[in-house]
Amino acid sequence: MSQRQMLIGMQLGNGYGSQVTAWRAPGVAPRNYSDFDAQVRYAQAAERGKLQFLFLPDTPALSSDLTHEAPQMTLDPLLTLAAVARGTERIGLVSTASTTFMEPYNIARQFKALDVMSHGRAGWNPATTSDPNAAANFGGTIAERPVRYQRAHETIQIVQALWGSWQRDAWITDTATGRYADTSKINPINMQGEYVASRGPLPIPPSEQGQPVIFSAGGGDYGLTIAGRYANGVIGSTFSIDDARAQRDAAREAARAAGRDPDEIKFFAGIMPAIAPTVREAVERRKQLGVHTFPARVPYLGQMLGIRLTPDQIDDPLTPEQLAAARPSPFDPRAPRALEIAREGWTIREILGHGAIDYHPTPVGPASATADHMTEWFESGAVDGFWFSPDIYEDGIDTFVDEVIPVLQERGLFHTDYEGTTLRDHLGAPAQYGLDARTTAATAS
Amino acid sequence: MSQRQMLIGMQLGNGYGSQVTAWRAPGVAPRNYSDFDAQVRYAQAAERGKLQFLFLPDTPALSSDLTHEAPQMTLDPLLTLAAVARGTERIGLVSTASTTFMEPYNIARQFKALDVMSHGRAGWNPATTSDPNAAANFGGTIAERPVRYQRAHETIQIVQALWGSWQRDAWITDTATGRYADTSKINPINMQGEYVASRGPLPIPPSEQGQPVIFSAGGGDYGLTIAGRYANGVIGSTFSIDDARAQRDAAREAARAAGRDPDEIKFFAGIMPAIAPTVREAVERRKQLGVHTFPARVPYLGQMLGIRLTPDQIDDPLTPEQLAAARPSPFDPRAPRALEIAREGWTIREILGHGAIDYHPTPVGPASATADHMTEWFESGAVDGFWFSPDIYEDGIDTFVDEVIPVLQERGLFHTDYEGTTLRDHLGAPAQYGLDARTTAATAS
Repeated sequence: MSQRQMLIGMQLGNGYGSQVTAWRAPGVAPRNYSDFDAQVRYAQAAERGKLQFLFLPDTPALSSDLTHEAPQMTLDPLLTLAAVARGTERIGLVSTASTTFMEPYNIARQFKALDVMSHGRAGWNPATTSDPNAAANFGGTIAERPVRYQRAHETIQIVQALWGSWQRDAWITDTATGRYADTSKINPINMQGEYVASRGPLPIPPSEQGQPVIFSAGGGDYGLTIAGRYANGVIGSTFSIDDARAQRDAAREAARAAGRDPDEIKFFAGIMPAIAPTVREAVERRKQLGVHTFPARVPYLGQMLGIRLTPDQIDDPLTPEQLAAARPSPFDPRAPRALEIAREGWTIREILGHGAIDYHPTPVGPASATADHMTEWFESGAVDGFWFSPDIYEDGIDTFVDEVIPVLQERGLFHTDYEGTTLRDHLGAPAQYGLDARTTAATAS
Repeated sequence: MSQRQMLIGMQLGNGYGSQVTAWRAPGVAPRNYSDFDAQVRYAQAAERGKLQFLFLPDTPALSSDLTHEAPQMTLDPLLTLAAVARGTERIGLVSTASTTFMEPYNIARQFKALDVMSHGRAGWNPATTSDPNAAANFGGTIAERPVRYQRAHETIQIVQALWGSWQRDAWITDTATGRYADTSKINPINMQGEYVASRGPLPIPPSEQGQPVIFSAGGGDYGLTIAGRYANGVIGSTFSIDDARAQRDAAREAARAAGRDPDEIKFFAGIMPAIAPTVREAVERRKQLGVHTFPARVPYLGQMLGIRLTPDQIDDPLTPEQLAAARPSPFDPRAPRALEIAREGWTIREILGHGAIDYHPTPVGPASATADHMTEWFESGAVDGFWFSPDIYEDGIDTFVDEVIPVLQERGLFHTDYEGTTLRDHLGAPAQYGLDARTTAATAS
């Protein structure tokens, strides 16, 4: 009954999948990038699986070479989530938005409107965008990290204060007396930071969860101060149980240092499974996706293994001499696993087909391989849950929902239905309204 | 067959109606402000009437006293239109967005995403926001008019250039060859203005209408330069046929001066009808809405008429002495009509119930009065159409659609179905993609 259960979010992006060539996979409509019906359908599939939230990465720039690859992001994350909010009932809706290139008032307004529209399902991942392509789109260059993080702290605090600028009971709407609101409970916030400022109030009443939930996806010491002070969800990037545990511990410690209960933060490790009835079929699925992209990755795979590899060898396994010389690079956490796969005798193309240099760990094979991976990581106490990146949305979500989720449910490790209606309910995040009193040091004036 | 026909847009705002106390009218759900289902329902009603577009005013600030009045705007115009786009098929979706407080890249991205989402139905009304409350929400003050308009020109040109940064045939998506896009046709715009800049490209392919349509609602010489250079729709504010004709002529002349065909600009006059079976019932409808707001307006009505009026006289008609002394103020174009109503013997409350100091002309009485007003203005050549502000959305849209529209259709003055699918189709606006070559002087580098 009281067994601890994992939480699962799902990455939503370009309409195809997290593999950059998913747009041309069999069964995928190659123009899904502009098809909001498809995005809604994918969100509904995730909701059928009772996933706690969708997570949209975002950078305000085109940073892919589109010759063979699709853009990675949605056309616009807030409009995508507005469409999804109208087509779903329960699943949480978390988007990234840049604290560097957006104004706090605009962020506060759109995320709170989404929160109201979705009846309390919105979350915000504040990003201190560091892509020079993004800066150029706003006529500038990327500032130093301390500047970007100072602006991020100020922005988050102003946004949260604006979210609370109508007290919870300010909205009266008493038709008998004609009183619309108690204006003594709708007040300016008057916050002045070094980089951003806002007076308020924001003209938006509370949602069913009060206000959106803060996520954090930034790493390093700077990222941890954001996570520790504000976040209820941390999106990690990690390739081993030990590293995941270390990241989770660091986030919890950062929360403790900020005066919060560490259990308020949930840590999510990425997972990008390759699911098919057999390992060989799963590798084949990824090989098809990599026809255009794998050859260019061969030299980097060589670097990871400390040996020289060239694309002309792509359909051969490593030679005994190469295997003997190989040493996993200490600079890439994926290297040990890549060497393991190489030692199993797979060709270079097949090693890449194992997701050896993908952005998240890739369990390969039947659904049980993914369920086992998740079970092992979760039961070791290294994570509170996962964010699942489907390689191809069109069939990858259904496969995960229909084949992986039931295994986790049978094991008692994942809920069988939503317990509540809001994202805070789904995450067990505590109630918060307005600026958290523990975080006001930086900019309240 | 070839009779010229009027175009009709509809104001969409707070979920209640354009009368600030509509939130407490009978039959109105007093929390519609946060109900996106209601907004979609109202948009669907307008689409049933074959209206060409919805128009959302916007200012990023709370500027109403909420004691008895609702906020005037939607929670967020882009998210509202995203919801509406998902619930409608044909009607155009035009929103205001501030060139002063938003970055061109963010405007370009969200409006083009809306345009793609709605299959070519989006329009943008760039506003050089002058409300000090808005400036305070962004930590600043309002700049002088020349500065705001210079930034507006730069912003519009950058936005249009970003909209065209993928050539129309850049998006290949050829699954056989694996070619996603022709990157030689996706290029930076490299535009540098005095106040704003952007490199691009915007990662969004063309919509069915290419890119959104520009509207303009600003008056005066500065506003005319915006209208003349960029707009296909001009939202006027006018209280007489002669003034409407003068405004329309000025907009057309501004287009001519910018090297455009003046027929590319359509001029819309506002209309805020009070419809009921009889004039007395229509006045009664408005009196009910004005219970809290009319007393405070009595002194201003007095100023309009050049006499002193006090709220204690609100339920009396003007005395013979007051009528004899009254002179319409030359500073308020509504004054002559207000005096006409007063001379008919109505009480002060009833004069206000005629919409005498409302923001748009108010035909009062049966639907035919509204149809006649529209017919007269349109047949005089003073306007290309109207933007209709429903006093109460809940019944006002249906009444207009079911009672006014059929009269106009019978007279051959309004279409009986949409001729095309995009907003450009609806307005007869010419194709445009990217920055109009005639408008590049200000900021292309």
